Amino acid sequence: VGGMGVGWVGGWLGAELKKGGFASHGNGVGRSRNNLQVALERACVERIGTDVSEAVSEADVVVLATPVDAFPSLLAVVAGAAPSEAIVTDVGSVKRSVCEAAATAGLASRFVGAHPMAGGVSSGAECANAGLFDGRVVALTPTAASGERARETVSSMWRSVGGEILVLGAAEHDHVVAASSHLPQMVSIGLAAACAQHDRPELFARLVAAGFASVTRTAVSDPAMWRAIVAANGDEIASAMDGFAEVWRRLRQAVGSGDLDTVQSIMETAAAFKGRKPT
Amino acid sequence: VGGMGVGWVGGWLGAELKKGGFASHGNGVGRSRNNLQVALERACVERIGTDVSEAVSEADVVVLATPVDAFPSLLAVVAGAAPSEAIVTDVGSVKRSVCEAAATAGLASRFVGAHPMAGGVSSGAECANAGLFDGRVVALTPTAASGERARETVSSMWRSVGGEILVLGAAEHDHVVAASSHLPQMVSIGLAAACAQHDRPELFARLVAAGFASVTRTAVSDPAMWRAIVAANGDEIASAMDGFAEVWRRLRQAVGSGDLDTVQSIMETAAAFKGRKPT
Repeated sequence: VGGMGVGWVGGWLGAELKKGGFASHGNGVGRSRNNLQVALERACVERIGTDVSEAVSEADVVVLATPVDAFPSLLAVVAGAAPSEAIVTDVGSVKRSVCEAAATAGLASRFVGAHPMAGGVSSGAECANAGLFDGRVVALTPTAASGERARETVSSMWRSVGGEILVLGAAEHDHVVAASSHLPQMVSIGLAAACAQHDRPELFARLVAAGFASVTRTAVSDPAMWRAIVAANGDEIASAMDGFAEVWRRLRQAVGSGDLDTVQSIMETAAAFKGRKPT
Repeated sequence: VGGMGVGWVGGWLGAELKKGGFASHGNGVGRSRNNLQVALERACVERIGTDVSEAVSEADVVVLATPVDAFPSLLAVVAGAAPSEAIVTDVGSVKRSVCEAAATAGLASRFVGAHPMAGGVSSGAECANAGLFDGRVVALTPTAASGERARETVSSMWRSVGGEILVLGAAEHDHVVAASSHLPQMVSIGLAAACAQHDRPELFARLVAAGFASVTRTAVSDPAMWRAIVAANGDEIASAMDGFAEVWRRLRQAVGSGDLDTVQSIMETAAAFKGRKPT
């Protein structure tokens, strides 16, 4: 297995693929020497390097685990340098763009995109530990052009680390995660950015409560990673943001006018959706 | 000490006041027999009952720990039933309304409002454990009418359980917590309510990520408690919501138009604000 990006997800995956018996040898490719070194020391991979062509030259499976905007150029290199039988996949949070890029690179039949629903705020291989994918949904988005061997290889790779496979279309995936994953990130960022403008910052800092901490927990996530996600899924994210804005407008109207029944009704809808069990 | 409301904060406070040596005996008053029984078994209080007049008839200090909309009627009863020297305080999340209610009840000189910045999603005495207030900011909002003995008693009560006292005006308090505490709650509710309307609920449930869980963690909080907070602080909450809406409008515009520099800049503002003091 040749993996590009040995950060949070890539690092975990390298380590788990060996533990699960899917791979015997992993090549890690990255830009950060420091991070590559950590991945090597933690035995996430057996060999490290910064040259993509070299790393994938004997790979059976290539896994892209960088920010998603690097995928098109990486796929072009992989198409030229990997064995012609190598299966290619990724772990990105958006799937339409990578499926298109794989087709453009001439990899359509050998590519199946993947999105493991397991992430964290941190980045870097030093966070990699065992068990990240166990029982987690892994979305796979094969296209009509994806070959049977690619489908089987990518499925069995994720099953080997405990993933629960969910097959769906790339557009369907991007539509749903825009609300289930990207919208919460926008909300988290929006709240922290709004509070950054508060007119009483010293008092704000002393009177901040647990709710602010949990809503803004992910606001520290890597801006470069999220910039790339927004670039690739902007239409769906904008639409999900409009859905939130409509609820916000109703809630604001109710709060401002003292329409407490509407406030409570929105709260009850929210609590019912969460199932009243704190997660 | 006579305490009204032996839930999350009230229960903890009862237990801690004895541990800290401030009180030797606590009377718990509530509406839920079940909850009162738990408070008694956990030794949060020594005596329980549902009659406010009876519970406060020999109290040195009376602490209101119910949803804030019950304060005006409770304060009227306390004014008539508690010893004329008794000091009265509360643990509510809004302070203008309770200060006014205390004045209306003729308790102005004996009342100092308090808001410990320590809460949780759960409610009920069963959650009460030791250490909740240790090192936490406790906002106190004495008015010009608050007597010296009331100020000293309430301060020393909260210091005895490890609280860090912050004295400020009630209006100032309500302005800041509207953003630092109430706004995050609105955002949490708004996101859960918006996602409750998703057109692909089954896929949403399978593709939901950690970010959704943390942003909506507090969306299950008691609607009755929050309804009362919105009723009392609606003007300030509405204004804080407008500040968020303005950031949201800018972010939505940038996401929809592919203005990635603006998206990244808002993300960096958010990350920097969180980075200033990780919570």
